Amino acid sequence: MDDLKTDFYLSGYADGEGCFCVTFNKSNRHKFGWDIRPSFSVSQNKDRSQILGLYKERWNCGTIRPDRSDKTVKYEVRSIGDLVAKIIPHFENYPLLSEKQREFKIFKEICFLLLGKEHLTRNGFNQVRNLSEQMNASGKKRYPRNKIKI
Amino acid sequence: MDDLKTDFYLSGYADGEGCFCVTFNKSNRHKFGWDIRPSFSVSQNKDRSQILGLYKERWNCGTIRPDRSDKTVKYEVRSIGDLVAKIIPHFENYPLLSEKQREFKIFKEICFLLLGKEHLTRNGFNQVRNLSEQMNASGKKRYPRNKIKI
Repeated sequence: MDDLKTDFYLSGYADGEGCFCVTFNKSNRHKFGWDIRPSFSVSQNKDRSQILGLYKERWNCGTIRPDRSDKTVKYEVRSIGDLVAKIIPHFENYPLLSEKQREFKIFKEICFLLLGKEHLTRNGFNQVRNLSEQMNASGKKRYPRNKIKI
Repeated sequence: MDDLKTDFYLSGYADGEGCFCVTFNKSNRHKFGWDIRPSFSVSQNKDRSQILGLYKERWNCGTIRPDRSDKTVKYEVRSIGDLVAKIIPHFENYPLLSEKQREFKIFKEICFLLLGKEHLTRNGFNQVRNLSEQMNASGKKRYPRNKIKI
């Protein structure tokens, strides 16, 4: 399969199994007391995790490791540089076809705010928080965004 | 996105979310007392199930309906004619890249045995049963295949 075909394939796979995520963790070392981390990940059962290697190989970034929470293996990209330089352009070129595309667009907006260090201003921080509130609505958030006040 | 790209995308999505399945149900109306049904299905949460419409549209077969067991929606192809004429050729042309490809190959073999009515002979039936035993090893089977004796 040539690269172009692999790219469409990887988008299709990610549409089902991928996750754009922005977590907030309490931290004294970060401005306003919160460490904001964006990530893209794809999880898979251990017995058929070879597909995760395709992502790593194709994008030349990210890590593959067992997920502590269950019997899955996770491919994850957490570097903001890699997210903006590699992951976001991929999904711009080979777009998701489901409602997850909406998540991607918010994720992209957040990544650019973080890259531009906008979250170090009160306005920018609140913008990131409000945007992240619109993501993964059905997923459980450790810190509900409306409880994060600065 | 043109059709070719959609096809690779749909394979990628199916590699994560799709299922090749062969169920055995007790039946007095079927030879040897068992009704054997192959199916291909893709499930998705209700709130982002629009991708299932892509399969139906692209393959012009199958049904989309709520899954009684949970809050998902399922696209399913059960007709042996559609499976052999449409689904199997699709995955021949746009192959799965994970271990699920192994499942597909067994599934294909079973579908051709069923289409050729080989399961109506004792040998053919046992062949289908043995092949199906090698599928979805981690999934729960209502009737463990080694308990099905004819």
